[in-house]
Amino acid sequence: MSKSLNLVPFVSVEHMMDLVLEIGIDTFLVELSEYLEEDFRRWEHFDKTPRVASHSAEGVIELMPTSDGRLYGFKYVNGHPKNTRSGRQTVTAFGVLADVDNGYPLLLSEMTILTALRTAATSAVAARYLAPANARTMALIGNGAQSEFQARAFHALLGVDNLRLFDIDPSATERCRSNLAGLGMTITACRTAEEAVEGADIITTATADKQNATILTDNMIGPGVHINAVGGDCPGKTELHRDILLRSGIFVEYPPQTRIEGEIQQLDANHPVTEMWRVIAGLSDGRADTRQITLFDSVGFATEDFSALRYVYDKLQGTKHFAELDLLADPDEPRDLYGMLLRRQSILMTPQVA
Amino acid sequence: MSKSLNLVPFVSVEHMMDLVLEIGIDTFLVELSEYLEEDFRRWEHFDKTPRVASHSAEGVIELMPTSDGRLYGFKYVNGHPKNTRSGRQTVTAFGVLADVDNGYPLLLSEMTILTALRTAATSAVAARYLAPANARTMALIGNGAQSEFQARAFHALLGVDNLRLFDIDPSATERCRSNLAGLGMTITACRTAEEAVEGADIITTATADKQNATILTDNMIGPGVHINAVGGDCPGKTELHRDILLRSGIFVEYPPQTRIEGEIQQLDANHPVTEMWRVIAGLSDGRADTRQITLFDSVGFATEDFSALRYVYDKLQGTKHFAELDLLADPDEPRDLYGMLLRRQSILMTPQVA
Repeated sequence: MSKSLNLVPFVSVEHMMDLVLEIGIDTFLVELSEYLEEDFRRWEHFDKTPRVASHSAEGVIELMPTSDGRLYGFKYVNGHPKNTRSGRQTVTAFGVLADVDNGYPLLLSEMTILTALRTAATSAVAARYLAPANARTMALIGNGAQSEFQARAFHALLGVDNLRLFDIDPSATERCRSNLAGLGMTITACRTAEEAVEGADIITTATADKQNATILTDNMIGPGVHINAVGGDCPGKTELHRDILLRSGIFVEYPPQTRIEGEIQQLDANHPVTEMWRVIAGLSDGRADTRQITLFDSVGFATEDFSALRYVYDKLQGTKHFAELDLLADPDEPRDLYGMLLRRQSILMTPQVA
Repeated sequence: MSKSLNLVPFVSVEHMMDLVLEIGIDTFLVELSEYLEEDFRRWEHFDKTPRVASHSAEGVIELMPTSDGRLYGFKYVNGHPKNTRSGRQTVTAFGVLADVDNGYPLLLSEMTILTALRTAATSAVAARYLAPANARTMALIGNGAQSEFQARAFHALLGVDNLRLFDIDPSATERCRSNLAGLGMTITACRTAEEAVEGADIITTATADKQNATILTDNMIGPGVHINAVGGDCPGKTELHRDILLRSGIFVEYPPQTRIEGEIQQLDANHPVTEMWRVIAGLSDGRADTRQITLFDSVGFATEDFSALRYVYDKLQGTKHFAELDLLADPDEPRDLYGMLLRRQSILMTPQVA
């Protein structure tokens, strides 16, 4: 997009909102899911590594890099459950897409909103392969920042139109219901998680506490249900009782990362799991039969952010939804970095003519 | 600095140049060296990991994170030797400083210029502990983008005022000499590396080829010399003949990284090296005697970028050398990220009153 080598397109939060709204939330989720599926199918082309995490008492800061050999992407993301007390987001993120051939960034983008969209789109992509046929009813447990995005993605991609909400904070449920009004979905606010899962084909858990919790107990899970576990995503943070895992067909993004961060950190290191990309690529089966409990143990993986950055980069062309940042030093002669500093000095020292 | 939670201070290339020039290059290098020494002394407080590298045929893209438990920093940096052919920098970089307590970025900064300054300041800090007493003459082999910064740092921190330059490209040497004019240094352009090292107390190698090269051979290195090897910094990229290493006292930043990337990748994995931080902290000896050959096998480490970001962040306060980026989503209610998108939609849909 940029003619000058020093400038990098920057998508601010406002730019991202305007881009998403111009495309339309449903269309954005559907098109993003196509990028996600495309990259899952060519999984073996990616340079993959578990995220690089820096843990502290209050939370975690992570870097999530990956590359397909042509493009390189990484995301910076934090997770600090106590942040809401100071008016901050639990999770904020930004990311960069770069050209592998010369190492220059192609795009710097906010990724708080984009991550919410990609997480929801990834859940819906997985559910297309794992949820029972004609699933229309979803329990949504944990009605925080991710909840409406999950609802929108399952509505747009699978036709889910019956939502059963539960959160330990009723005001969160009320906000979620209110935000989702007018989209043609039947929404029921439930008083307990037990009530929320009644009749649900799909159960999505998206809670945020940084600790082992038991949002779902074994007796709540009947045959044939698909569980979309989004909230457990770091060591010591899980949402499901171990017994549920032992009864489920478990599908994961990248086993070396999920074994550390996902629900399966509760299981033996060699407990069998199926890699989601293999299902999408047609190399492994998804749901086995109508009675199988399927679990997508989602922790979020770098390739999904890569897909999202790649999609945004493509959609950005020809729009005005970005600014240009003077991020890269661009001396007239590449090896003359110091000379650039000297020339700046002489510009600054030149008397201004009034 | 910023009042609004969504805004992150951004130091562009132009801002960085103006900040450096306002402080003065010498003062900047001296003050930065104090931050570097301070962080080397509290080395054991840092969360350290070898850089996360993504290698390709043409170069490498790396992420270099670290944290002292209070602040978190990372740098994105590429290394693409062929970039100069397309008018690009071999190395460009940018970085982020963040608050560990809430994970929010405090600063986004260009780091191409800043890395050049921190690399040179780190070399000079090491040389203060390793170079022969009263060293005044330095051979500078490889007269690319890093060369003038090395010269300035050794001039400012050690009083080196006699430079002997060599590059396989005479125009690089001429540019380096011209850029360094007027600072009171005696500068000699040499026709060979052998000529450049004649009479030198310190030999700095800063060449950029991504391959094993032999810039210095064993017969060129006399007793008592300090070698500051800056250019070898990735697997398969070295500058010194192995025999020199076997005769030298070797000092490194972070052994797990240097064993992979530094000159010592040519040696056995258990060849003895001294960690530079131990010397600076007074826990290990520096130069042993006047005849010892000392080698600072520098590859650049994340804590040095952390020190540089920390210094820039401190110096930025009260200046106008930054812009503010709308990088972080900041909904009125932290958990209402989706609602922020809805409110933006209603703003965009409100008819404009002329």
